[in-house]
Amino acid sequence: MIASPVAGSLAMDILEEINQIRIIDPHSHIPPEAAAAKSIDDLLSYHYYTELAHSLGMPKECLGLDYPARDRCREVLGYVCRMDNTVQYSWLLWILKTTLGYTKNAIEPGDADMLFDASLKIYQAPGWERQSLELGPIDQVFLTNDFDDPLTGFDTDRFVPCLRTDEMVFHWQKAGVKERLWRRTGVEVVDATSLGKALRELFQFFLNRGARACAISLPPTFHAQPVEGADLTMELLKGGPSVGRSQGIFWEIARCCAEFGLPFDLMFGVNRNVFPKGVHQGCDLFDQRLSLIQLAPIFNAFPSVKFPVSVLSSAQNSELVAYSWIFPNVIASGHWWYANIPGLIEQDLRARLHGIPREKILGYYSDMYKLEFGPPKYLMFKQVLARVLAQDYVAPGAMTRNQAVELARDLLRNNPARIFPAIR
Amino acid sequence: MIASPVAGSLAMDILEEINQIRIIDPHSHIPPEAAAAKSIDDLLSYHYYTELAHSLGMPKECLGLDYPARDRCREVLGYVCRMDNTVQYSWLLWILKTTLGYTKNAIEPGDADMLFDASLKIYQAPGWERQSLELGPIDQVFLTNDFDDPLTGFDTDRFVPCLRTDEMVFHWQKAGVKERLWRRTGVEVVDATSLGKALRELFQFFLNRGARACAISLPPTFHAQPVEGADLTMELLKGGPSVGRSQGIFWEIARCCAEFGLPFDLMFGVNRNVFPKGVHQGCDLFDQRLSLIQLAPIFNAFPSVKFPVSVLSSAQNSELVAYSWIFPNVIASGHWWYANIPGLIEQDLRARLHGIPREKILGYYSDMYKLEFGPPKYLMFKQVLARVLAQDYVAPGAMTRNQAVELARDLLRNNPARIFPAIR
Amino acid sequence: MIASPVAGSLAMDILEEINQIRIIDPHSHIPPEAAAAKSIDDLLSYHYYTELAHSLGMPKECLGLDYPARDRCREVLGYVCRMDNTVQYSWLLWILKTTLGYTKNAIEPGDADMLFDASLKIYQAPGWERQSLELGPIDQVFLTNDFDDPLTGFDTDRFVPCLRTDEMVFHWQKAGVKERLWRRTGVEVVDATSLGKALRELFQFFLNRGARACAISLPPTFHAQPVEGADLTMELLKGGPSVGRSQGIFWEIARCCAEFGLPFDLMFGVNRNVFPKGVHQGCDLFDQRLSLIQLAPIFNAFPSVKFPVSVLSSAQNSELVAYSWIFPNVIASGHWWYANIPGLIEQDLRARLHGIPREKILGYYSDMYKLEFGPPKYLMFKQVLARVLAQDYVAPGAMTRNQAVELARDLLRNNPARIFPAIR
Repeated sequence: MIASPVAGSLAMDILEEINQIRIIDPHSHIPPEAAAAKSIDDLLSYHYYTELAHSLGMPKECLGLDYPARDRCREVLGYVCRMDNTVQYSWLLWILKTTLGYTKNAIEPGDADMLFDASLKIYQAPGWERQSLELGPIDQVFLTNDFDDPLTGFDTDRFVPCLRTDEMVFHWQKAGVKERLWRRTGVEVVDATSLGKALRELFQFFLNRGARACAISLPPTFHAQPVEGADLTMELLKGGPSVGRSQGIFWEIARCCAEFGLPFDLMFGVNRNVFPKGVHQGCDLFDQRLSLIQLAPIFNAFPSVKFPVSVLSSAQNSELVAYSWIFPNVIASGHWWYANIPGLIEQDLRARLHGIPREKILGYYSDMYKLEFGPPKYLMFKQVLARVLAQDYVAPGAMTRNQAVELARDLLRNNPARIFPAIR
Repeated sequence: MIASPVAGSLAMDILEEINQIRIIDPHSHIPPEAAAAKSIDDLLSYHYYTELAHSLGMPKECLGLDYPARDRCREVLGYVCRMDNTVQYSWLLWILKTTLGYTKNAIEPGDADMLFDASLKIYQAPGWERQSLELGPIDQVFLTNDFDDPLTGFDTDRFVPCLRTDEMVFHWQKAGVKERLWRRTGVEVVDATSLGKALRELFQFFLNRGARACAISLPPTFHAQPVEGADLTMELLKGGPSVGRSQGIFWEIARCCAEFGLPFDLMFGVNRNVFPKGVHQGCDLFDQRLSLIQLAPIFNAFPSVKFPVSVLSSAQNSELVAYSWIFPNVIASGHWWYANIPGLIEQDLRARLHGIPREKILGYYSDMYKLEFGPPKYLMFKQVLARVLAQDYVAPGAMTRNQAVELARDLLRNNPARIFPAIR
Repeated sequence: MIASPVAGSLAMDILEEINQIRIIDPHSHIPPEAAAAKSIDDLLSYHYYTELAHSLGMPKECLGLDYPARDRCREVLGYVCRMDNTVQYSWLLWILKTTLGYTKNAIEPGDADMLFDASLKIYQAPGWERQSLELGPIDQVFLTNDFDDPLTGFDTDRFVPCLRTDEMVFHWQKAGVKERLWRRTGVEVVDATSLGKALRELFQFFLNRGARACAISLPPTFHAQPVEGADLTMELLKGGPSVGRSQGIFWEIARCCAEFGLPFDLMFGVNRNVFPKGVHQGCDLFDQRLSLIQLAPIFNAFPSVKFPVSVLSSAQNSELVAYSWIFPNVIASGHWWYANIPGLIEQDLRARLHGIPREKILGYYSDMYKLEFGPPKYLMFKQVLARVLAQDYVAPGAMTRNQAVELARDLLRNNPARIFPAIR
């Protein structure tokens, strides 16, 4: 894998020990009913590959639902071979070598059929889901559940429900949202009071089924502000999108988090649909002109709510370090999306480790859509972590190797377990 | 200490020579009448520890003035042990080992009483202040003096007065400010003219007592603009806070700096009271959405005034490098507050060394409240500096080891001495 | 040179191979009729040296056209000696050693006359231009041509024309601009339609003479928006500067790029004349408060146009990586101006290599005004590149040494050749 420690080095020794830690992954997009890939098509459909391939000129047609999967793999793989300098490529190569017995050091497009066949055989064999997790090794994976997800049919101890709230906050006016909330909660929202009632029903429903976090992604223009009572009622009755309504629903959800003891993951900075003709999930980018001070009102208003915060750009990392160091309820969380590459992780992680108490750092989350990506994405993070621990702590004598491994254990397991306790 | 060079390395050899340089520290908050700690309580009361402990959940009660010092140390130390990954912890551990004979590699909370007793004995012994400075070794420490500080009772050669102007610029309307200025200067400010007269009396007073700098911290929203004459008079007579008044007083202070030859330290970017329930001095954060272009008018208007500029975030460092490289009167100054951690210092320092002429870099200032912190904070900086000098200059043959040490001497001693000359 | 790889290291071995790559330099300010220096005066007149010398206190008088060149060199060199920590100094020292036989490791001001004499002899000898390029080795250098440049009298295969459009977009109202466009194209612009006609004539003229790119630098406040038809006509008839007119002309130029197949270099972020009393070309700085989202409309509107994008600050690099990864027509381009120092290049380059497919990275351009600077500026980049390739790819086994060198070849030669094809 690119940017990994060199064999025989202190960092590699540390990495070998870190690799034993059983991971709790506090954020993913895993569909629990189809958590693992059924074929290499499920891997190549990960938006990283489709968007990078599209960026290299791949037409979008092959991404249609009715396009033959085998042909799609041939098509996408032809482009993937041309991104062998990227870390995304190195995740895929790692998966091919580790799970499909691929032996080459570079992916060759002519191997598409062979890889497709191998993946059908191996990924559809019984027990693959568990084997896939063991490559982490990952014990628990947090999900991203729509507010009306029935949360049934899966082991909520392995796949931990998490209430995603973007739709209610930013798309309240869209067809069906209110109705779906009514069907889930039995409460028809007609004003601020009934909104509060519906949300509490919803929270109780999620908690009863093992939810351990609430989550939202916020655009860079978002400012947290209370909009309550009659003001919120008026907002709820309006048509069209409304900043005030988003602020008000967001605020009420934070209040529910306080009442029910749920942490509230804030993923701050994404602009949706900047590239409307992009591939699915490859349309969103960001605007670096934002500040965590926009969220300070919610940090101040709800001191009992833990807010794990993610940022999209390394340029925001200085703020994230400072806000986590000052606010008792702000936690620096993972390396999100466009910031999830070794060159940025290394500088961001060093600053976090040097400036934030260890308990307040969620080292990493996979953000994955299929389980196979958990192990190589975590491995990338662990490689960077091992190098930083070796250089900054163990080599200068500030920590023993064991102490450094325990610090890694906090980041990868103990902190997710403690910050997101089972409440039920 | 974390992130330090490895023993036996070229960087460590360079560090050993750099450690002999007698430092001039161009910015601190030392109270000259109680410059050194009287006990470990004075160390643990440093806002870094109280705010990080508070961030870990420590209630604020123990920080009250009437809380027993020994109990407070027990309390705070219990939290400090949980931040052993931070550089702030490594400063404290260094002090305990170097000054109190502590022999462990990690601070144990059970040692609180022992450390408290040892600190009373050692810190209250005669000569401790001087011994503490010799650990740097630090020859001179610049202070931060209120505008009505009498500047008496201390050796102004060791502790150099510096006129802090935030109160006049940003809190003119607050009770007592005008009166205190009148008492110090004998001038009652009723308009722009009398303001100019009062400020000149004030500057003369400070210069007579050895002041070598003027200083201010500026919020990220600040734009330097002249507000003068009748406009300024009108602003001075207004109640409440006023942007125009702040701009006008700031501009007039810069004019006085030009007339009296005082450099004007600008510390740009702090938002006050973002976390109102924080501990003392732990309420302030920042907003990265700012640009040094907001200060360009003052750089242009007063070319004879040297402006050492500090920024709060690594994201602003690119601008600081460019503005120092272009404006003859802009000097890149230290690594301020939230940017004062090795992972950020390293990338910021490298860019400064590669792009700014050596004379225009103030390497570091301690920002300390008690002398004991000077040596470990400077040591942290010197460790990073030694590593950068070794990797970027000496190893590739661009400088000899001696030349690199002379570069360090410029940053740590010669530049502060030259940029802030004694004027009296 | 500062920050270069250490002799005998893997990075140095890679560098030696990379040094054989014959470079295509996709952006410079070379005047083709006087491409190489005639004396060391032409080197010391490079704005890097005049602005850094001015920043150190050099009066501007010596920069006058009638000031004796030999005296100017003495004067400037006296200041240059005081910036021996900077990378700009290391470029110059490299040139003196490599081309003038200078043998010292530090430039001594007393050598000014000797260096001046040597430079006259060597730089004015026949064949110097070609020898100078061979030090790169550089095969092709892209120019920056005014829109009414006759493009005659030089070898357009060696010096590739590039249509610079700043004047038309931002200074349309200035005396002579419309007239010069009329003289070049035979079209008098009286409305949007005739503007379109004139631009197409202009593009055809440039293409006929071998142009392979269109280029512009944009201020941080610029937002790309279509202003067309009657609206644009109205803007064209207005006096004074106008945001809408700039947007409209820019949009029409992008449309011409689409029609003619020319890539459009966007250099985003410069504020002109921030320091009006600066030296020539040393008055411009930047404002980090900008986002590539401001350019998204043009990326979306013209998907067939390749947009190589440069940014001024390392703080914008995260955005550049993300936008290049998502938009098929956005290409990360070089390390521009204030971002062109090793400490920043290293972190920016690592992120680009880890996150952008190799075909979409233009590794470097010289931005030079005289050919002598191409080799040391490229060498600086190649040194950083070799170190990143060694550490992140070859040492961990992700690439062989040969593969790493081929990646470098893409960045330095193949990508410029493919992204800017000869169209004629």
